[in-house]
Amino acid sequence: MLKKSTSILFFAALVCSSAFAQREDSIKLKQIANEVMLHGKCYSWLDYLSNRIGGRISGSPQAAAAVEYTHQLMDSIGADSVYLQPCMVPRWRRGDKETAKILTTNAGEYSVAICALGGSVATPEGGLTAEVVEVKGFDDLKKLGVAGIKGKIVFYNHPFDETFVNTFNAYGATFMLRFLGASQAAKYGAVGTILRSLGNGVDNYPHTGTMQYNDSVAKVPCCAISTMGAEQLSKLLKTDPKLRFHFEMGCYTMSDVKSYNVIAELKGTEHPEEIITVGGHLDSWDLAQGSNDDGTGVVQSLEVLRTFKALGIKPKRTVRIIMFMNEENGGRGAKKYAEEAKAKGEKHIAAMETDAGGETPLGFGLDGTDAQRAAVTKWKALFLPYGVYDFTSTEGGADIDKLKDMGALLLGLEPDSQRYFDLHHTAQDTFDKINKRELELGAAAMSMMIYMLSQYGVQ
Amino acid sequence: MLKKSTSILFFAALVCSSAFAQREDSIKLKQIANEVMLHGKCYSWLDYLSNRIGGRISGSPQAAAAVEYTHQLMDSIGADSVYLQPCMVPRWRRGDKETAKILTTNAGEYSVAICALGGSVATPEGGLTAEVVEVKGFDDLKKLGVAGIKGKIVFYNHPFDETFVNTFNAYGATFMLRFLGASQAAKYGAVGTILRSLGNGVDNYPHTGTMQYNDSVAKVPCCAISTMGAEQLSKLLKTDPKLRFHFEMGCYTMSDVKSYNVIAELKGTEHPEEIITVGGHLDSWDLAQGSNDDGTGVVQSLEVLRTFKALGIKPKRTVRIIMFMNEENGGRGAKKYAEEAKAKGEKHIAAMETDAGGETPLGFGLDGTDAQRAAVTKWKALFLPYGVYDFTSTEGGADIDKLKDMGALLLGLEPDSQRYFDLHHTAQDTFDKINKRELELGAAAMSMMIYMLSQYGVQ
Repeated sequence: MLKKSTSILFFAALVCSSAFAQREDSIKLKQIANEVMLHGKCYSWLDYLSNRIGGRISGSPQAAAAVEYTHQLMDSIGADSVYLQPCMVPRWRRGDKETAKILTTNAGEYSVAICALGGSVATPEGGLTAEVVEVKGFDDLKKLGVAGIKGKIVFYNHPFDETFVNTFNAYGATFMLRFLGASQAAKYGAVGTILRSLGNGVDNYPHTGTMQYNDSVAKVPCCAISTMGAEQLSKLLKTDPKLRFHFEMGCYTMSDVKSYNVIAELKGTEHPEEIITVGGHLDSWDLAQGSNDDGTGVVQSLEVLRTFKALGIKPKRTVRIIMFMNEENGGRGAKKYAEEAKAKGEKHIAAMETDAGGETPLGFGLDGTDAQRAAVTKWKALFLPYGVYDFTSTEGGADIDKLKDMGALLLGLEPDSQRYFDLHHTAQDTFDKINKRELELGAAAMSMMIYMLSQYGVQ
Repeated sequence: MLKKSTSILFFAALVCSSAFAQREDSIKLKQIANEVMLHGKCYSWLDYLSNRIGGRISGSPQAAAAVEYTHQLMDSIGADSVYLQPCMVPRWRRGDKETAKILTTNAGEYSVAICALGGSVATPEGGLTAEVVEVKGFDDLKKLGVAGIKGKIVFYNHPFDETFVNTFNAYGATFMLRFLGASQAAKYGAVGTILRSLGNGVDNYPHTGTMQYNDSVAKVPCCAISTMGAEQLSKLLKTDPKLRFHFEMGCYTMSDVKSYNVIAELKGTEHPEEIITVGGHLDSWDLAQGSNDDGTGVVQSLEVLRTFKALGIKPKRTVRIIMFMNEENGGRGAKKYAEEAKAKGEKHIAAMETDAGGETPLGFGLDGTDAQRAAVTKWKALFLPYGVYDFTSTEGGADIDKLKDMGALLLGLEPDSQRYFDLHHTAQDTFDKINKRELELGAAAMSMMIYMLSQYGVQ
């Protein structure tokens, strides 16, 4: 009897204390959100990063300026330590020339908008001209074989599936055409490739992005054509299959140079050995300002630091804010960070990445064990008042995936994806596309989640 | 024993048939969504409405053109009947003059951006000049009294509360300052009013919107000042309380004219007497194109009709698509529609309004009895794959609220609200602000919900 009533009392105390903790957490999260929405600096930081520094392709003066800028910002916000982590990065450059024309057999020439894919080799001086064979994917290459492809330019024309509600699913379904398309086509003797830009709808902005050669086959130049150009080319090919495509690109690769991840740390007061990271990537593509990819993730991560400091939050576990270098074309920063963490035997319990845009946050992807996912999803009700409702995705992020086998739960902020691929890797990715409140809500969601993780761990 | 097994069989059959129905519904909703996302016309209709017709203030040639355009569209899409419902509408006009200056006592003059509130009287020819008294709301008027207000211009400076996640809550908290502010101030002898524009953040676009005079006090001219202008005026007042404000407005009101609601009907095959409406408002403010307010609601409602016809859906209950006239400054169309529906003894079971923008849809507000709300929220799982998760709001809409006492459940589409009040009632409300996918997802959500309502009613 005594035992029973004790356990009832104990249970009651547990329930009360859990309800109390929930209420305390809810108050703290509201303070955090209010701090960001009323005093947030991320929007003005993004203005500077976009309009004063600009596009930050790896190894560029602008990438170095971004390292310096965020380093100084971290210093001025204040952290227990702020440091640079060196890593060597590739230097691919677009060069000056980037033009293309459709040469019909009987109806003249049409200029079309293209851009080189990141990592592509140049065309020969004066350009490359050849007939075009249109395919939807790698299966078509097999069917056409060497007979159908040799000496021609392969045109990958696979439109985004607009019926995917989350546009990242449409990207996922076509990404490999960009990443491996050049060598896959070269295997059959293609002399170059044209990729229909990976984006929603139809417009005239070509989308760049990284690609990789297979060293066992010839390296052929590869470009992305705007979706509008792709529609035009495809239409003309139907009536004029012998038309030729001419493109000239002057891109080139220089030797690797030293660059840096930029890191700030708030030491945990109770479990300093348990590390939680939050970050975005500092480099960007070169066609615009890299405001949404991933300027937003950079400044939102810095906002987490600012908010903790402004509210005097001393995290129980160590929180590291990381600006990763070279996500776009190499992932060298992420590799370096994971290598060093492993070499030091560090214990990473959670890693958050924000690299899906600065639009309204709707959830977090959770990449981990069922137990880890459950440890976070039990906080769902705390996030619902901020419109953050969806914890079903298992997407983490490219800069943190090497921390998974160290036992870390990977978290990816999931903003509304509708507008993301209008801007992604194009000349459109500029500061004016970013909405202040959307950006700040994302930073608030991240700060709240990092607070909960630092307070309770992942258990 | 027989009875038990019968009832088990019955229950099993019920479960199966319910699971089957759920699966059937889910397939049908996917068809509907795909139809909108792949073949939707709403974006190009909005382009026409915005760029070929433009701002459509009640009683204007543009409003008449919008009536004609949507009438012809409905005819060409095809419906069981398409008709105009006449109503008289007010004709308030902005006129040519709309200027303002802050006249400091010792530091010169500053021009500031203003616009007349809809319904305001003009200033005297040559403008009105007076000292300014800044207040946050009506309580401050009481405190200041006649002694503090008489002969002055009252400046309502109540910024949006940026901590509200749903921006409509910030609007709701300040709306009455716009709607009743002029007469409230005039009671104490104010000679005019300035309203800090009802919008998020700080920019230089004044927001118009409707206001109402109380006939028992003097009608004083009232303008909205941009949030940037409000910040400037407030700051100057702190050091220069004797500064004067000068504004000139040439707005005026002409006699009412005839206009129309535009209505299309799909007759119900099983319960034609049960009516479900869906609509937005055809009129807009005059400062821009009225693309988001409420061009989006108009074209999304038309898309519901197009989608039903394209998929050959014959609704079990009658579906009426209604383009309401004069929502912005009178609500005459809504009044007329409700009056006639009541006079005819029609049975309205549900009414949906879309007047909260064309951004990504996140839910539906449900204004009705608990039973009615439950009848819809039980479909939640069907909508979740489309990002439509939130059924907690009880907001219906201004054009349908008169149908509530007829027994109709009111439904309001709830898009993401973050960007809405950047555009609302300003010169910024133009077509280029609208994202095609966001608009289409909204139309898809509406079409899916109207399908479910027409199939099952509200029970």
